[in-house]
Amino acid sequence: MTSLASGSTGAEPPPARWEPDGADHPALRGLPAVWLRANCPCAACQDPGSGQRLVGITDVPADVTVAGVLASGTAVEVVFGPDGHRAVFGRGWLAGYGEPPGQGGAEPPGRDGAAPSGHDDDRTEDAKRLWAAADLGGEPPRGWWPRYLADPAHRRSCLSAVLTHGVVILHDVPSVPGAVLAVAKSLGYVRETNYGRLFEVRAEPAAANLAFTRLPIAPHTDNPYRDPVPTVQLLHCLHAAAAGGDSTFTDGFRAAAVLRGQDPAAFACLTTTPVTFAYSDAAAVLRATGPMIGLDPRGRIRQIRFNGRSLAPVRLPAAQARTFYAAYRAFAERAGDPEAMVTARLSRGDCVIVDNTRVLHGRTGFADGGGTASASAGRRHLQGCYADLDGLTSAVAVLARDGAGGAGS
Amino acid sequence: MTSLASGSTGAEPPPARWEPDGADHPALRGLPAVWLRANCPCAACQDPGSGQRLVGITDVPADVTVAGVLASGTAVEVVFGPDGHRAVFGRGWLAGYGEPPGQGGAEPPGRDGAAPSGHDDDRTEDAKRLWAAADLGGEPPRGWWPRYLADPAHRRSCLSAVLTHGVVILHDVPSVPGAVLAVAKSLGYVRETNYGRLFEVRAEPAAANLAFTRLPIAPHTDNPYRDPVPTVQLLHCLHAAAAGGDSTFTDGFRAAAVLRGQDPAAFACLTTTPVTFAYSDAAAVLRATGPMIGLDPRGRIRQIRFNGRSLAPVRLPAAQARTFYAAYRAFAERAGDPEAMVTARLSRGDCVIVDNTRVLHGRTGFADGGGTASASAGRRHLQGCYADLDGLTSAVAVLARDGAGGAGS
Repeated sequence: MTSLASGSTGAEPPPARWEPDGADHPALRGLPAVWLRANCPCAACQDPGSGQRLVGITDVPADVTVAGVLASGTAVEVVFGPDGHRAVFGRGWLAGYGEPPGQGGAEPPGRDGAAPSGHDDDRTEDAKRLWAAADLGGEPPRGWWPRYLADPAHRRSCLSAVLTHGVVILHDVPSVPGAVLAVAKSLGYVRETNYGRLFEVRAEPAAANLAFTRLPIAPHTDNPYRDPVPTVQLLHCLHAAAAGGDSTFTDGFRAAAVLRGQDPAAFACLTTTPVTFAYSDAAAVLRATGPMIGLDPRGRIRQIRFNGRSLAPVRLPAAQARTFYAAYRAFAERAGDPEAMVTARLSRGDCVIVDNTRVLHGRTGFADGGGTASASAGRRHLQGCYADLDGLTSAVAVLARDGAGGAGS
Repeated sequence: MTSLASGSTGAEPPPARWEPDGADHPALRGLPAVWLRANCPCAACQDPGSGQRLVGITDVPADVTVAGVLASGTAVEVVFGPDGHRAVFGRGWLAGYGEPPGQGGAEPPGRDGAAPSGHDDDRTEDAKRLWAAADLGGEPPRGWWPRYLADPAHRRSCLSAVLTHGVVILHDVPSVPGAVLAVAKSLGYVRETNYGRLFEVRAEPAAANLAFTRLPIAPHTDNPYRDPVPTVQLLHCLHAAAAGGDSTFTDGFRAAAVLRGQDPAAFACLTTTPVTFAYSDAAAVLRATGPMIGLDPRGRIRQIRFNGRSLAPVRLPAAQARTFYAAYRAFAERAGDPEAMVTARLSRGDCVIVDNTRVLHGRTGFADGGGTASASAGRRHLQGCYADLDGLTSAVAVLARDGAGGAGS
């Protein structure tokens, strides 16, 4: 469109060391001209401060070529045709994106402090450590709030557990109302909903909602009737039940992967059948639709939506409905498998942080524990709020960039 | 698992009018036994107050059958085998989900006041009215804030425009700092991010970021480096530029649909290639990955991610990278097509509400308008914030349930 840099116009002959028509130059690692030009790091193409790209794809000449290459020790200078634009790339940076000399993918280097994970999408199963109960020794990863506050390495370790395992429990968060909001702020931003910034989970003697009874609640993800679903849930215990009321956590990605291995047809049904979840009360009418097992475009497990309480009637022809319910049952059985599930009895001050796109949470009934289903057993009181994984992931990346070690916990 | 209701145990013979083995009863509309049982509306299966389902799929007997049917004028009573559980359905309700007597899908009735749209997923292209500039007479839908506040029908009309067209401009929002937050609260909840609850968009003479210059900004969606992406963006004009600085809006769903029609291979590339968007500053390191054109499991356009400024280098073999950049260019050309784009010069007090999963926004350069690129032309000042579509959709549904007419605007 326009010439975006001074420098060679193409009319001047390149110096002797230049290799004209250098698209095959080994330093370019097979990266095509359009890729190189679209990622030109010069100050006219990319803002040096923010790293934002200043020119769009339609500003790149449609017939862009590599007219010449000059490779030195660490830098590779490229002159583009037809407009003579010049770019200087780091040789190592190009190597990170281009084809390796042999086979096997190279790791792209982290930019701007982002820890390179080797995964192009850190939200899919490929970037997670899937677990059954035995893999975790039967209980979720744990951390300690006073140390979390004082020690960036411990904070990074706790938050990384949410990214890798989908759950962490922090002990000794002050058991005062609203403390859960401080935990949320430490890892990102509260997602306010029609339930407020904060909501109460309290057992009540005569309850209209299953959550406010002493009944067990099957493993589920929260709020699948919302889109975007809140991607992080926090629950903070102010008072534990006298007996029972244990929290359960299941790795929904692993349950889905197990289903894929054992019953591929059921897995395929749940990944391709959009279902609707619904919730309504006096102030809200919420509906959202998506598959129970959401995949990325490459077929990797990426988001679980699972909540029998809010699933709306499916609208499918009879044969497909039978297939769907059989698949749904097969997934529910794997999600509810005791060997898949870890249990933790939240004590006063414990705060659990869950990846709500992946880990299903539930609870055992209160009366099961000690057989004392008295009124005092109903004093279990949690406070909860929602947040999002982008903020949490950013918090971990900033800690990594700023040098917080990964040890601890 | 357990018998969930009193009533017939199956041991008692049904009355004469009962039709044993009634799964083929026409009143059941072909709905299979497992569907009927999973959606049993009795108080043991579904909480009468909240509508929440109280039993999960694993509580439904795997060998559930319809043992008998008793159809009256408006009610259809079903006895299930093997456990004798009973359900009473509304005949019309069943008709809404089951197979119609002839061909063609029946509309499911709205539940709990949710207006039935006929779409199982109101976030895909099927539920939208795609538009080019001419379809809108060259300008976005508009409303008037004082009337929006006073008249629920006008409020419903304005917010419905965001759902159907992806954009609305409200005039005469008080041009005081922070007023955009009041607009956000009227339709849902502010999504706080690392930019704050509120952010400033101000032209500055010497800017480090393209947004804070007088340069044009190509059509884009905001924050594709965030996941979940904020699904609603609000921008409120406190001071207009002396000349130029017009806002542009493009229906990204239509641009994608046009691409699908004209270049199916390019469309397929952009729907199946996850790309990464990145942003970082002193306090945040954000990366998110997804296809530029996101589809639902049935192949319908559902989410656009489009922002040349924050696209990270793609990591693909050379041939695929060439294909990708050609497809990206083809989409960018359609998104930037003047015939696709409506323009609005935001005046003091105007507030635009955009569906950030669909509509691309941009702006023209400031100096292009009146040729007076003086310092005073740099006084353009917007305030923005993010919110989410689930809250906005709920607000519309509540207005519909409460009887706010759809007229107005």
